[in-house]
Amino acid sequence: MCGIVGVVGTTMVNQVIFDALTLLQHRGQDAAGMVTSHNGKLFLRKDNGAVSEVFRTRHMKKLCGTIGIGHARYPTAGTSSSAEAQPFYVNSPYGISLAHNGNLTNTKKLAQEVFEADLRHINTTSDSEVLLNVLAHELHAEGKLVPKPSDIFNSLERVYARIQGGYAVVSLITGYGILAFRDPDGIRPLIYGSRETADGTEYMVASESVALDAAGFKVERDINPGEAIFVDVNRNIHFKQCTPAKVARPCLFEYVYFARPDTVIDNISVYKARINMGEKLAEKIEEEWLNHDIDVVIPIPDTSRTAALQIAQRLNIPFREGLVKNRYIGRTFIMPGQTVRRKSVRQKLNPVPFEFKDKVVLLVDDSIVRGTTSKEIIEMAREAGAKKVYIASAAPEVRYPNVYGIDMPAAAELIAHGRTAEEICRLIGADKLIFQNLDDLINACIDEKHSNVREFDTSVFDGKYITGNIDAEYLENLEKARNDVQKSGSEPQQSSDMMQPF
Amino acid sequence: MCGIVGVVGTTMVNQVIFDALTLLQHRGQDAAGMVTSHNGKLFLRKDNGAVSEVFRTRHMKKLCGTIGIGHARYPTAGTSSSAEAQPFYVNSPYGISLAHNGNLTNTKKLAQEVFEADLRHINTTSDSEVLLNVLAHELHAEGKLVPKPSDIFNSLERVYARIQGGYAVVSLITGYGILAFRDPDGIRPLIYGSRETADGTEYMVASESVALDAAGFKVERDINPGEAIFVDVNRNIHFKQCTPAKVARPCLFEYVYFARPDTVIDNISVYKARINMGEKLAEKIEEEWLNHDIDVVIPIPDTSRTAALQIAQRLNIPFREGLVKNRYIGRTFIMPGQTVRRKSVRQKLNPVPFEFKDKVVLLVDDSIVRGTTSKEIIEMAREAGAKKVYIASAAPEVRYPNVYGIDMPAAAELIAHGRTAEEICRLIGADKLIFQNLDDLINACIDEKHSNVREFDTSVFDGKYITGNIDAEYLENLEKARNDVQKSGSEPQQSSDMMQPF
Amino acid sequence: MCGIVGVVGTTMVNQVIFDALTLLQHRGQDAAGMVTSHNGKLFLRKDNGAVSEVFRTRHMKKLCGTIGIGHARYPTAGTSSSAEAQPFYVNSPYGISLAHNGNLTNTKKLAQEVFEADLRHINTTSDSEVLLNVLAHELHAEGKLVPKPSDIFNSLERVYARIQGGYAVVSLITGYGILAFRDPDGIRPLIYGSRETADGTEYMVASESVALDAAGFKVERDINPGEAIFVDVNRNIHFKQCTPAKVARPCLFEYVYFARPDTVIDNISVYKARINMGEKLAEKIEEEWLNHDIDVVIPIPDTSRTAALQIAQRLNIPFREGLVKNRYIGRTFIMPGQTVRRKSVRQKLNPVPFEFKDKVVLLVDDSIVRGTTSKEIIEMAREAGAKKVYIASAAPEVRYPNVYGIDMPAAAELIAHGRTAEEICRLIGADKLIFQNLDDLINACIDEKHSNVREFDTSVFDGKYITGNIDAEYLENLEKARNDVQKSGSEPQQSSDMMQPF
Amino acid sequence: MCGIVGVVGTTMVNQVIFDALTLLQHRGQDAAGMVTSHNGKLFLRKDNGAVSEVFRTRHMKKLCGTIGIGHARYPTAGTSSSAEAQPFYVNSPYGISLAHNGNLTNTKKLAQEVFEADLRHINTTSDSEVLLNVLAHELHAEGKLVPKPSDIFNSLERVYARIQGGYAVVSLITGYGILAFRDPDGIRPLIYGSRETADGTEYMVASESVALDAAGFKVERDINPGEAIFVDVNRNIHFKQCTPAKVARPCLFEYVYFARPDTVIDNISVYKARINMGEKLAEKIEEEWLNHDIDVVIPIPDTSRTAALQIAQRLNIPFREGLVKNRYIGRTFIMPGQTVRRKSVRQKLNPVPFEFKDKVVLLVDDSIVRGTTSKEIIEMAREAGAKKVYIASAAPEVRYPNVYGIDMPAAAELIAHGRTAEEICRLIGADKLIFQNLDDLINACIDEKHSNVREFDTSVFDGKYITGNIDAEYLENLEKARNDVQKSGSEPQQSSDMMQPF
Repeated sequence: MCGIVGVVGTTMVNQVIFDALTLLQHRGQDAAGMVTSHNGKLFLRKDNGAVSEVFRTRHMKKLCGTIGIGHARYPTAGTSSSAEAQPFYVNSPYGISLAHNGNLTNTKKLAQEVFEADLRHINTTSDSEVLLNVLAHELHAEGKLVPKPSDIFNSLERVYARIQGGYAVVSLITGYGILAFRDPDGIRPLIYGSRETADGTEYMVASESVALDAAGFKVERDINPGEAIFVDVNRNIHFKQCTPAKVARPCLFEYVYFARPDTVIDNISVYKARINMGEKLAEKIEEEWLNHDIDVVIPIPDTSRTAALQIAQRLNIPFREGLVKNRYIGRTFIMPGQTVRRKSVRQKLNPVPFEFKDKVVLLVDDSIVRGTTSKEIIEMAREAGAKKVYIASAAPEVRYPNVYGIDMPAAAELIAHGRTAEEICRLIGADKLIFQNLDDLINACIDEKHSNVREFDTSVFDGKYITGNIDAEYLENLEKARNDVQKSGSEPQQSSDMMQPF
Repeated sequence: MCGIVGVVGTTMVNQVIFDALTLLQHRGQDAAGMVTSHNGKLFLRKDNGAVSEVFRTRHMKKLCGTIGIGHARYPTAGTSSSAEAQPFYVNSPYGISLAHNGNLTNTKKLAQEVFEADLRHINTTSDSEVLLNVLAHELHAEGKLVPKPSDIFNSLERVYARIQGGYAVVSLITGYGILAFRDPDGIRPLIYGSRETADGTEYMVASESVALDAAGFKVERDINPGEAIFVDVNRNIHFKQCTPAKVARPCLFEYVYFARPDTVIDNISVYKARINMGEKLAEKIEEEWLNHDIDVVIPIPDTSRTAALQIAQRLNIPFREGLVKNRYIGRTFIMPGQTVRRKSVRQKLNPVPFEFKDKVVLLVDDSIVRGTTSKEIIEMAREAGAKKVYIASAAPEVRYPNVYGIDMPAAAELIAHGRTAEEICRLIGADKLIFQNLDDLINACIDEKHSNVREFDTSVFDGKYITGNIDAEYLENLEKARNDVQKSGSEPQQSSDMMQPF
Repeated sequence: MCGIVGVVGTTMVNQVIFDALTLLQHRGQDAAGMVTSHNGKLFLRKDNGAVSEVFRTRHMKKLCGTIGIGHARYPTAGTSSSAEAQPFYVNSPYGISLAHNGNLTNTKKLAQEVFEADLRHINTTSDSEVLLNVLAHELHAEGKLVPKPSDIFNSLERVYARIQGGYAVVSLITGYGILAFRDPDGIRPLIYGSRETADGTEYMVASESVALDAAGFKVERDINPGEAIFVDVNRNIHFKQCTPAKVARPCLFEYVYFARPDTVIDNISVYKARINMGEKLAEKIEEEWLNHDIDVVIPIPDTSRTAALQIAQRLNIPFREGLVKNRYIGRTFIMPGQTVRRKSVRQKLNPVPFEFKDKVVLLVDDSIVRGTTSKEIIEMAREAGAKKVYIASAAPEVRYPNVYGIDMPAAAELIAHGRTAEEICRLIGADKLIFQNLDDLINACIDEKHSNVREFDTSVFDGKYITGNIDAEYLENLEKARNDVQKSGSEPQQSSDMMQPF
Repeated sequence: MCGIVGVVGTTMVNQVIFDALTLLQHRGQDAAGMVTSHNGKLFLRKDNGAVSEVFRTRHMKKLCGTIGIGHARYPTAGTSSSAEAQPFYVNSPYGISLAHNGNLTNTKKLAQEVFEADLRHINTTSDSEVLLNVLAHELHAEGKLVPKPSDIFNSLERVYARIQGGYAVVSLITGYGILAFRDPDGIRPLIYGSRETADGTEYMVASESVALDAAGFKVERDINPGEAIFVDVNRNIHFKQCTPAKVARPCLFEYVYFARPDTVIDNISVYKARINMGEKLAEKIEEEWLNHDIDVVIPIPDTSRTAALQIAQRLNIPFREGLVKNRYIGRTFIMPGQTVRRKSVRQKLNPVPFEFKDKVVLLVDDSIVRGTTSKEIIEMAREAGAKKVYIASAAPEVRYPNVYGIDMPAAAELIAHGRTAEEICRLIGADKLIFQNLDDLINACIDEKHSNVREFDTSVFDGKYITGNIDAEYLENLEKARNDVQKSGSEPQQSSDMMQPF
């Protein structure tokens, strides 16, 4: 998953893009980048590392201009190289930079087309680089020296016709403006807002509403599925519905785990959805675990706290923060001659023993993916003296890989892939285990009052890929690719500190 | 405030010290350092920055040895330069490194003595450098080529007789072992533990028990007030009560704010103390605000969450995490020709509007110091639609400066200095404001079952400085010094990246 | 001036390119860059700084592949931005990287064409970026999915037809090979050689023969004026004369100053040419300064040493190295509140006093450009006790700007611009001054036995620009541009450390 | 060998120390350091690397004060760790920093004494750290709160009594001044000078006169053997002869190789001495090689050029610079899986073939130490077509290790150790070989008119160690230590970038 942002302002935009990226960093903190434009020149800074590490004063000084885009990256293993920071750039036509959140599902075919039709060299395995070149090709095909918004939208319609998957994109067309667009199903989020200044209105598009809030931008609305927005350098705003209008079917996992709680996606409050998840799950617990003996509800921080609190309130059981998260990320140094120390959950979490001592605890997590962390935490709870350890997952069993941009392991690594809840319970060593029902999760997210969203991308739970082009062969290749990546850790790595992604 | 750690191990200690510093980093993340010793040689790395930034693989490779100490620093403005990383070092006698948490209150006099009696040059304004030189002087005075533990303790008794304040210290005496000691009142925390390995027992001393827990060290016990512990290079452990034995009077602020919730200081669980703070404050609310109209309790994250939860449970009001904290630290770049942007609380916190909308909210904070943040958050709550905004502080009014190592502003900047709660309430724009009573806070922390602590350092609340040597003149000088520091931001700065602290 | 190199090898080429750039660094040491290609991917590293600073082990590790090009840059003020490292890159078609030595004289027109015809964005003021885009455009126009050498040469013929100036170019066409070519007049040098290995023949093209020598490549021959060479990825070599064949008219300044003495350009030994320059100048001295009273000949190191030695031998006067050059480059730090210290020649040269004391010295320099250095050295010689100070210049008066890639000041700054030798002599404070005659210089360089070169680019001496397109307007604009650059030192700078050249 | 400098100025001294270090960098460019003092505080910057790499603007900004010392290091393998940058520092007494050129020959004994008498920890194997601690101990023994110059000189007399070897030292005594002193035999050079400013006279002491010249300081005189100079903070200058006065016996190798030609040591011009070396050697050639067939004299750059020129002039044979030195230092990167490429002289030197072709060449070097370089150059000359290759060494056979600070290999690695000139000639593959006679070398350096020096340290040639304390056991240990260092390349390295030398 990634965070993207684009701003057309009345003054220098580097600070506001930096701030937005900082706020979107929960979506990806392994690389960051920014392109700005001033007097027809582009300025780029991107590198691996957290936003605060990538942008130093010496870089910011050079990121001139009142228009720019930014990116914070969480790598999508298997389908994109782990070492390519965004934005990507091509100089023909116009000089186009692009930052992307999501994943294209027909990358391979597109890459071939891009080369064959336009001789465009793709230097990475990133679908974002392919997407940029498809866009560049179609813009070039319009052949306009000075492209009008309608020219840009026309070419974008052809892009939509060619690309498949879940995606949200911002793109800086040098000298003309910022183009942003969202996939036809609205799988990946994209929102825009405005801010009034003495010199006129400024616009920001971003992955999440929190980026707008914190910068003092007023949320205007979500970009619609299949819709494009173009803010030209004179800060005129243009819209175009590039695919048939439909209601968004956003990725359920944004609400479960990915988005910040204070974000609102497609008019659904993430925070409220999580409270509802707790409520629904509590109902299920009451039904299924009659006369349960739970003494205390303890969230596995941070995401699950909202749902766990609601479970506790509904079940009328004390809620306790019995696990303390270490905010500072540790690291294991490999000294010459040493073997790698197993990464332990203990570096991330520490129990408050007396909240476990002689109690029946219900641990709450947002989801259970590989199951390894759950297993360790359950052990930790027992060591801390818990009488029994139950675990509840605010999301249903994760059984299928994600193909729309969330970095999920291959199916074979998913603990729920081909296993029943009981089998999983045994594997992770819990005394009891309960998963949210998928219907309940969907209903928890639906907000009839504020949003017209009624369906979601639920593929990781039920294997239904709404874009329609995902078949067994695709998934098989994906599985194989991910295994290959794991095996070949030693291939020459590109770091954007020095290697340009071209 | 700072975090300190010392380890005598059976294998290389650099990783375990790194891990401990990472876990103690809530006590200070503006500088970090480590000294290890191998074959009579010392290896040092220290610099400004977070632990993860200061120690890179290239540094770790050189930090050889099975014995070492570490430090994570939070600067104490006014009494210590903002640019001195620890540990400090002197080569005579033996080669002594030292890391310190706390503050000496007779630094000036000591610095003069140290120079006059021993011609020792002090290169910084840090009390830790002075402390190291007092220790070095007294160890030298013993005149032993091979100091026995008793020699070390004898000289340490003279150190105790000379230094005043609140302090916890670890010191590496090259070739001999690690010495750690705690002030006579036990104001600053210090604890030790052990870990069994195939090659024998390893020892760690640290500021907080969490550092022991995460590294798999078993907590042995807190170091007593005025007690010293010496672990020699052969991992024999020695203790000495260097001042008359008494019960610790730890700093109340450790429980209120500074320590991690999962830490236990002097056998008092910080977490439990914070729950009790919530309980006591809820009682006071019930008493004072009869028939209150509070709709929801919202903590100001992170510290106050534990207390706030208990307030909500006791008052039987919904608890909601209506304020979301940004985990990633933003930064404002000063571009040429720009003026400094005011640091806004909005960069740190974002509201979930519907938890405020048309509600009477009780915000809970751990304490109110300058009042500026509270004011901003209250404004933010109103903008988010709150009908009324109440605020509760888990600590009483902070009215006096701290002289034992906590970086508090000068008295004049404390909003509660010379003001009533009503006046404060008006200033910060709350509809209602309630402070914890000091007695209640003390009682919240007392744990008769597990700990013999009955009194605390409460100076910031009541102006009673338990070390006895703090008079009006001292405080006046302190006030003046802090003002001077603020005014003269432009003096040549020393960075430990290149400047040795000497 | 710049140094360029391209290698198609049987094993990794990064080290051999590094070595070649190190050896070519006298041609430019303010920036360096390298692109290599492996399995269809490109790897790039470029930055400001010396070769040894730009390439570190971490970069070299990533510069994979058996084919690559490199560049060492000396900035050409006024016509190219001072902050663009090479190679440059465009991804369409094929992914083309390019490194260039020289200067195009119709850059502005080309830049406009490139945008208008192909919508290609040029992000810098570098003529090299324009040249790359012209090449890319013409290659694209061929429209071949798999370009044959003949396709490449065809498109290159159109490039030749469009670009004007003095240039030597290496270009990596991803997946296909390395293309190198030289301007129709052979103004800038380019040479190629081969090296036999167990796995076949390897090829290198480079600016100077020294790069081939040191790497163990056998010099094959100079690339002819208007000739292109293409070494494909299978190490087959192809040649094409792209403009009408003629004899090279290389830049005279290469022999006077720029090239290394051990280099051979167009079969003329630079070293031998410099000896001849000394011989000719000695003859002129003998003729013009009858019964001269010169006691000692002292070269102004390093370049003039070869000529000076010959002058001394011919005049039968002692040759003494009375000026010692400081090999380590000094630097003046601007501290806050300080004014810039005048850069003194004393930081570069120090006299051996007794070689000057009471002597009539003949200083020999390769050329006199601004005259400021000469003036300072003459003063220094007098301070060291010289009775009289004469100065001889191995090159004639430099009166006109260079437009083919040598960084010369604008005409107004040239001391010889519009002045007689006598006026110059007075201005620099010499007792006598003698310049080489242009005919003598030309004859010094001509080597009838080994080379068919009979004419040279002599424009800086006589204002005759052999490419024919340089008119008064062009020179006026150049003059203006250089002044503008000097005035506006504060515009946003791009550093390739972070800014992509796009 | 190292370069040292100390300045007491009227304004900030960081730039002038930087400039001096740059000029002294031929004496050592593998590490550099500077300490300055301002208002009783010290500022230090030191690191491995060239002067220009170690000191950046950010460091210079912090190096405040009108008094300071500097050091440029060339490592002395075997007797000093390769990773300790200077100055060193101890805080007791007064805070003393010290930079040292030379080598103590009783380091081991001193290190033990320093620990036993004063418990002073020595953290490195550097004799400079020991020397500093001896000085500190003796200054401390004086016991003065405010030391007068006489107190400092008194303690220094005791230092002289204890230390043995060849040394030149500058030391900053915080708050008091700069102390500089030279060994009793004047083996290592040390000179001082003054500069008048509007605010009074400034003083500089430095290893070589060039440092004074370039900074505009007037050479006053060399420090005498066994003499100390103390410039206090008020810029009063004090002298003291601390050992019985005698005439200096400077290291011959300074004249042969180490010092810059434009330097004057003990009133002997290095440049003139080298001319004389050429003269003497030419005489010997004339005598021994009657009717020689030498066609051309070619120096092996850079040092030997002065002598070679004189040989050519005396023999009346053409002098040609047939070997071109590469000014830019190459580097071989070790890629994973690659073996180390042999360092070739070809990376440093390139022949101008026609100066060798069919000629009998006399190569001239300053000295022949290991012989490996000579061998390679001779091969290169043959490949370039030389008919015969003769070689002349301006210095006699180097047969013994240096113990006074020059980094020479152990005896076993010296090609002349236990071999005749004929054997050496065969080993290096020359057709003829001639060494300077030692007497001739001595006479070449003696300048009766300007200097009273009549004897030199000639130990590397004749094994006579003038300090008298060098016996077979010492040399054996030295040999062993150097071998040990070579074998154990993998021990933990200290880098002063991060590791303090303590």
